[in-house]
Amino acid sequence: MECKNELQQLLADFKANHMPSVSIDCVIFGFHDGQLKVLLLRWKNTDDWCLPGGRIHKQENMDAAAHRSLRERTGLHEIFLQQFHTFGDVNRYRHYSQIETLAKLGLPEDVAKQVVSRDISVGYYALVEFANVVPTPDIFTDECRWWDIQQIPALLFDHNEMVSLALKTLRRQLSYQPIGYNLLPEKFTMPDLQQLYETILGQTMDRRNFQKRMLGYGILKRLDERKIGGAHKSPYLYRFDKEKYEKALETESLFTT
Amino acid sequence: MECKNELQQLLADFKANHMPSVSIDCVIFGFHDGQLKVLLLRWKNTDDWCLPGGRIHKQENMDAAAHRSLRERTGLHEIFLQQFHTFGDVNRYRHYSQIETLAKLGLPEDVAKQVVSRDISVGYYALVEFANVVPTPDIFTDECRWWDIQQIPALLFDHNEMVSLALKTLRRQLSYQPIGYNLLPEKFTMPDLQQLYETILGQTMDRRNFQKRMLGYGILKRLDERKIGGAHKSPYLYRFDKEKYEKALETESLFTT
Repeated sequence: MECKNELQQLLADFKANHMPSVSIDCVIFGFHDGQLKVLLLRWKNTDDWCLPGGRIHKQENMDAAAHRSLRERTGLHEIFLQQFHTFGDVNRYRHYSQIETLAKLGLPEDVAKQVVSRDISVGYYALVEFANVVPTPDIFTDECRWWDIQQIPALLFDHNEMVSLALKTLRRQLSYQPIGYNLLPEKFTMPDLQQLYETILGQTMDRRNFQKRMLGYGILKRLDERKIGGAHKSPYLYRFDKEKYEKALETESLFTT
Repeated sequence: MECKNELQQLLADFKANHMPSVSIDCVIFGFHDGQLKVLLLRWKNTDDWCLPGGRIHKQENMDAAAHRSLRERTGLHEIFLQQFHTFGDVNRYRHYSQIETLAKLGLPEDVAKQVVSRDISVGYYALVEFANVVPTPDIFTDECRWWDIQQIPALLFDHNEMVSLALKTLRRQLSYQPIGYNLLPEKFTMPDLQQLYETILGQTMDRRNFQKRMLGYGILKRLDERKIGGAHKSPYLYRFDKEKYEKALETESLFTT
């Protein structure tokens, strides 16, 4: 009972200090060693998984709330994090109702009814080097860990849809913005870069077309070094031209080059 | 005074029937005869312009609210309308405060303070053939009309920022989704299509590269007809392959082709 009152107080405080009707959810993609993963949380006392998220303080910018959530769950600061979609259907909680989910925390239905509301949720996504992350559960959850993108279970609320759409947006981003800085080592080969793209796209690409397109973007500098220790044909090393990379990020000009 | 009470009642009803903290705004781009325009509303009794928008009924999907707003302002049904960004800064109303703006409608400051709240706003954009639109003001506004994209004045709230970001998103869309169906006549020439792209991008493109890229997407069918009445070299006519066009819209596969 002590536990229940504590939770009830916690939910009441949440309601008083945060914007009504609006929440945020974060799809945090981890890239490491040619694999794409997503950070998930396990709801207290259950086997149910969901995305990290939270609410917006009444005097807090929405983006700041998303950064706060990301920082609390991963330990990372200053990460490329951006909105991808806002989810606003009346019936967003079709897989599990909010009340059923709160009941799993031990909250009686009548109390739950007082704290739930029809919310819209603003979805954010980030792409991080997952070796740098310290996964940390929040007050509603027992566990926080990476899941392979291919093996994500049925999630609470509409969170499977959020993951799908975040992945679609990340793939879309490849068509107008460069990607790879902070995810690849400073010097990398064209096959390394292609592996990053293929992992995100979930499909193979033609080697020569890929190289031609990437060089056409004008954001790569070929070094006078080759990768050592390879087979008979050692590939050249490249690095990003930081200035041109930043400019392409800003202007989203890849399409018109 | 009658007018003031009516308005006060109207605002109170709004508050009771709509989701708190959340609004929507629509950037409606019109394309016609090689020009790009935006539909704006003039706030009652002022020379101040803003975007069409509104709030979400408590039992209404957010997308449905956006469609309703678009329908009411343009008379158009079944239009391609999509979210582009959600605006969530605390200080969104930096150009004009909400209270100042309501004061222009004749609402005293103490009343205005009761109805304003810190909102996030979900931005939607649409691209329509503007000859089909019947611009219609709403209850807060005296006038609704098209403005040339180059001549948009300083708008209320953060609406200039919304227009800029909607345009950036529309341009971005060209890199992963086809565009032109419903905006070009059924049969069109490659220069017609290029003009549409150049108008949206606000820059010229190389003729041969453009043609090569468009044909590479596999969504165009070249007809056995040429445009009549042109100069010595009449251009071929094309039409969209509707099935492949729809597939490209759905899969956003232009990048990987």
